Amino acid sequence: MKNRVVIWQVTPSVDGGRYAAKAVVGDDVIVGADILREGHDLLSACIRYRGPDDTRWREAPLREDVNDRWYGTFPVDAVGAWRFAISAWTDHYRTWLHGAVKKVEADQADLDLVFADGANLLERRLPRLPQAATQVLTETIETLRRAAPAGERLAMAADEDLLALLDRHPERLDRTLSKPELPLWVDRERGRFSAWYELFPRSYGPDEATSGTFADAAKRLPAVAEMGFDIVYLPPIHPIGTTNRKGRGGPQDLDPGPEAPGVPWAIGNADGGHMTVHPDLGTIDDFDAFVAEARSLGMEVSLDFAIQCSPDHPWVTEHPEWFRHRADGSIAYAENPPKKYQDIYPIDFDTPDIEGLTHALREIVEFWIDHDVKVFRVDNPHTKALPFWEWLIGEIHAAHPDVIFLAEAFTRPKMMQTLAKLGFTQSYTYFTWRNYKHELIDYVVELTRGEMADYFRPNFWPNTPDILHEYLQHGGRPAFKVRAVLAALLSPSWGLYSGYELVENTPLRDGSEEYHESEKYRYKPRDWTRPDSLEPYIARLNHIRRSFRALRFLRNVWFHHIGNDQLLCFSKTAEHRSDPVLVIVNLDPSATQAATTWLDLWQLGLEHAGPYEAYDLITETSYIWHGPQNYVQLDPADEPAHVFALRAL
Amino acid sequence: MKNRVVIWQVTPSVDGGRYAAKAVVGDDVIVGADILREGHDLLSACIRYRGPDDTRWREAPLREDVNDRWYGTFPVDAVGAWRFAISAWTDHYRTWLHGAVKKVEADQADLDLVFADGANLLERRLPRLPQAATQVLTETIETLRRAAPAGERLAMAADEDLLALLDRHPERLDRTLSKPELPLWVDRERGRFSAWYELFPRSYGPDEATSGTFADAAKRLPAVAEMGFDIVYLPPIHPIGTTNRKGRGGPQDLDPGPEAPGVPWAIGNADGGHMTVHPDLGTIDDFDAFVAEARSLGMEVSLDFAIQCSPDHPWVTEHPEWFRHRADGSIAYAENPPKKYQDIYPIDFDTPDIEGLTHALREIVEFWIDHDVKVFRVDNPHTKALPFWEWLIGEIHAAHPDVIFLAEAFTRPKMMQTLAKLGFTQSYTYFTWRNYKHELIDYVVELTRGEMADYFRPNFWPNTPDILHEYLQHGGRPAFKVRAVLAALLSPSWGLYSGYELVENTPLRDGSEEYHESEKYRYKPRDWTRPDSLEPYIARLNHIRRSFRALRFLRNVWFHHIGNDQLLCFSKTAEHRSDPVLVIVNLDPSATQAATTWLDLWQLGLEHAGPYEAYDLITETSYIWHGPQNYVQLDPADEPAHVFALRAL
Repeated sequence: MKNRVVIWQVTPSVDGGRYAAKAVVGDDVIVGADILREGHDLLSACIRYRGPDDTRWREAPLREDVNDRWYGTFPVDAVGAWRFAISAWTDHYRTWLHGAVKKVEADQADLDLVFADGANLLERRLPRLPQAATQVLTETIETLRRAAPAGERLAMAADEDLLALLDRHPERLDRTLSKPELPLWVDRERGRFSAWYELFPRSYGPDEATSGTFADAAKRLPAVAEMGFDIVYLPPIHPIGTTNRKGRGGPQDLDPGPEAPGVPWAIGNADGGHMTVHPDLGTIDDFDAFVAEARSLGMEVSLDFAIQCSPDHPWVTEHPEWFRHRADGSIAYAENPPKKYQDIYPIDFDTPDIEGLTHALREIVEFWIDHDVKVFRVDNPHTKALPFWEWLIGEIHAAHPDVIFLAEAFTRPKMMQTLAKLGFTQSYTYFTWRNYKHELIDYVVELTRGEMADYFRPNFWPNTPDILHEYLQHGGRPAFKVRAVLAALLSPSWGLYSGYELVENTPLRDGSEEYHESEKYRYKPRDWTRPDSLEPYIARLNHIRRSFRALRFLRNVWFHHIGNDQLLCFSKTAEHRSDPVLVIVNLDPSATQAATTWLDLWQLGLEHAGPYEAYDLITETSYIWHGPQNYVQLDPADEPAHVFALRAL
Repeated sequence: MKNRVVIWQVTPSVDGGRYAAKAVVGDDVIVGADILREGHDLLSACIRYRGPDDTRWREAPLREDVNDRWYGTFPVDAVGAWRFAISAWTDHYRTWLHGAVKKVEADQADLDLVFADGANLLERRLPRLPQAATQVLTETIETLRRAAPAGERLAMAADEDLLALLDRHPERLDRTLSKPELPLWVDRERGRFSAWYELFPRSYGPDEATSGTFADAAKRLPAVAEMGFDIVYLPPIHPIGTTNRKGRGGPQDLDPGPEAPGVPWAIGNADGGHMTVHPDLGTIDDFDAFVAEARSLGMEVSLDFAIQCSPDHPWVTEHPEWFRHRADGSIAYAENPPKKYQDIYPIDFDTPDIEGLTHALREIVEFWIDHDVKVFRVDNPHTKALPFWEWLIGEIHAAHPDVIFLAEAFTRPKMMQTLAKLGFTQSYTYFTWRNYKHELIDYVVELTRGEMADYFRPNFWPNTPDILHEYLQHGGRPAFKVRAVLAALLSPSWGLYSGYELVENTPLRDGSEEYHESEKYRYKPRDWTRPDSLEPYIARLNHIRRSFRALRFLRNVWFHHIGNDQLLCFSKTAEHRSDPVLVIVNLDPSATQAATTWLDLWQLGLEHAGPYEAYDLITETSYIWHGPQNYVQLDPADEPAHVFALRAL
């Protein structure tokens, strides 16, 4: 009878295997399954898995936890497409042994027959065992059949070496394989654990009237590296359209005048399109030099992949069929009625030349990969055809499995999830709008506890060029510290938009999340030498992130009780609850808050500890704590957060 | 580009479509799906479905609820295998109309062009529309293109008849179908809504020493029908083995003596096996007459399908290969070490003749179907090979889709779920062991709110021949009323084992759930004429069940707050929160309990009601209530439960 063992609910699984769950190199991937067979026979099971370079299946053990749920792990050691399944079968010998133990305990009358049954089961295994084991096993079989004392026979039957030998050469008479095989996509570690810094190279020139160049911006790179970032993300670096260009005043400023540099996302003009560098920034060689400089500092460069065109983009004349035309023959500009974006022509994914279009888009990505760009921040992917992303990311990953795609979608929850399922490595989130304690806990639990954590990797940004949250507008320097601590330590990936370290917090107007004098519309040189810069603070956070393995993972965050709605207390630990980091943040940027913790010590690996040290990695101060209750007081003007390394004394 | 629209999470779905969700004839099956497309275009969607007799797909509308989740229903009007899927596409015209409304509101400058775009979209639809509609549509197109007032053109474009016409003949340029098609198994209504009565025909003889016959038991059928039951379930009616027969004293009594009739589940002797009637009960013709008598009273007969043999079963000699043999050549009896069941030989589903075995088992079921048995209570299905059940139920349902299988498994939760997934129509539950308020609420919520409710149909039994719960042992007559009310009104299917109406509650011994003088081991004639019988009470409960449509459904149960841990308050309503039934039970059989309700009036369809009538269907007393808070007091010695029909005045 086929599929004698029933295997359900294999995890991680995304939509029943339609999409890949995600992991990074070095992970021990935790696999779970419900495994059932009729009656009371004991089962054995293993994970079968294979990596991109494997020519055959590998196996890892699976053990029963409770209620027919089994768990195991397998290590992933290569970037690319992995597959796994569960194999399960009846363990007839252990089933017999389990019963024999009880029968010996009950001193049953038919023990000779019981042991003879066991001997027959062992004899059946002989042909598949290595020659070297035959003699030992034959002796066991003979002893079981002899009228030896029951205890002696049972000890022989239950011998650990014998059981291990049998496990190494299992008899899988009724083996069942779970279906379908499940896909797992494995990224390099930066796919999950990364710190991003966003900068506009053109703002690193001498003054507000002059474009900076790649060479100018490169001078800032050592400071960015010093702050501990590993990805430098640049908004579009391509020629900018002139038709309907926005002025320096922002989105409502339709009168650019000659001095407005335009919005970088209005891509393309007579100089070229998506595979061209804006001449004001330099040449492609200058770009290559910028990338090389970043690499030499241990960072890599991410580009913005924004699929849209200014009315001056070469494609408008070369490929008018890639745009949507209106009744009068004009090309439809972007709009969200009644809002109009006349400087942007969206691409029409309903074009009859979809093949030409998608191949051209793939060519753009490949072009920049050839210039050592392995990280793409994708602009508004939720306004491009969804099947396109699955195709594009699949195509790119087939040749370049180390490429990282970050989805810049701030939209409906299921669209966010869908993009991640389709293959995006990381995703922007609602973090920016989660500022109260209950909001933060609810959202982080949603991201880290459910099925979503198998495929959706959050990237927490306290700010972006589009989003200056009112919490930052009104909370001053303490608010900037709070949000940086939360982003950097709650999520394995986080990012900052430059200017954050200078506590830039003036909005375009009251009630707006747009920046005053937004860099999207103008050159914005800054004084990086200000003594009150948060650079050292940010550097310390990134240093902590790199020093504590716990901070590289997503699912391991744990919220502890603390009796104050303005205080948030959470921890992360590395494998086996080791090396705990405990964070306590005062979310109120304007007042001192105090309370007593109630720490879940078992989550910190400290349930058996007596006194333990809480060493504050920010202030470099040490406290000796006892048990779950410890009094904490945080003055935001001083330090709004404790970041403790905990250590049993 | 294929699959332009993304469709996820289609429900009801059991393990991604591997197994069928369940419904009954007359249901409007609620279907849900996440449907997404890039950008802001409006979508349309429908359910495609087909029944067992359909030669083509039918369609039913789907509408967006919130957050990209869509819902709709389709009616099922035939027993058998149905399939459904979701079809979704972009509604280009409505998308245009949606934008046009905003543009007219904003009094945009290019309204002529806007309407021209709309006219073009309509023109594209012309070829697929019926001839009769062409003229009207052509006029609309011409008007949109004319420089008529914007309001007039918009009204024409948004005309309800026009939109309905377009919906009837949709343009599905980028239609996407959900995959896979999902299976739905539709039973007759009794598959979900049924009241079972279990009796041992042999107990209806003249005295404790004499077997009753089918003819004797048939005399009890009018009373069973009067109580409102619709299924009469008989434990095995086959010849009983004599080897190792248990005595009248119960499971420990290994000395049967000549008077012990044996346990009906020890099936088979020289007279025959599973297709033979025990000669003491009568002939097969007598059985047929019993079934016919039940039918004439509006009931049907259920048999016990117990796949096991006494050592005297004909198969033991005819098919020794269907049993497991031990080292000495003997057949292994049933055991759960150190317990032994020497009077039972389990079937070995690892037999090399699995095909011969399974066909013989199917033949048994078919034999009884030919004798008008369409309901089978399956004994311990969790100790038989799981794939066998999927095969057997599939085979039987292919020819007899009206057959009902009840799984008698009291085992681990996932095994219970698995059996239901594999095809069992109904399942025994843990209800018997859920007696406290929080236990009842938790369990009923688990059964009715989650995915399980799509495939697992609970059948609540307050007692069985194996289970006399201590709540009944100690709670007396009020406890029997309480458990009957809960079983009959919480679950669409319930059942009683005979003797319940006589408040039989003596256990084998203290701490045991076995009955004293258990009917499993002896004839047990009873005095059905006792004046304190619960028969009228049970009859009333079943009458209420049949009178109120709300009680035919599973998912519609709602627990209301009531400020007393001994009082349970729940309601059920029919479609659109109509015809509410409100039940308040005093779970404490020994003391009067009182409290004030806090009714969720919107769940009762009474949120806009002023005073409303609460008519107690048990005591036939009427109360006038106002709002959510109403004082209730229940003396268990009098009536432990209110069963109210609520009606706005």
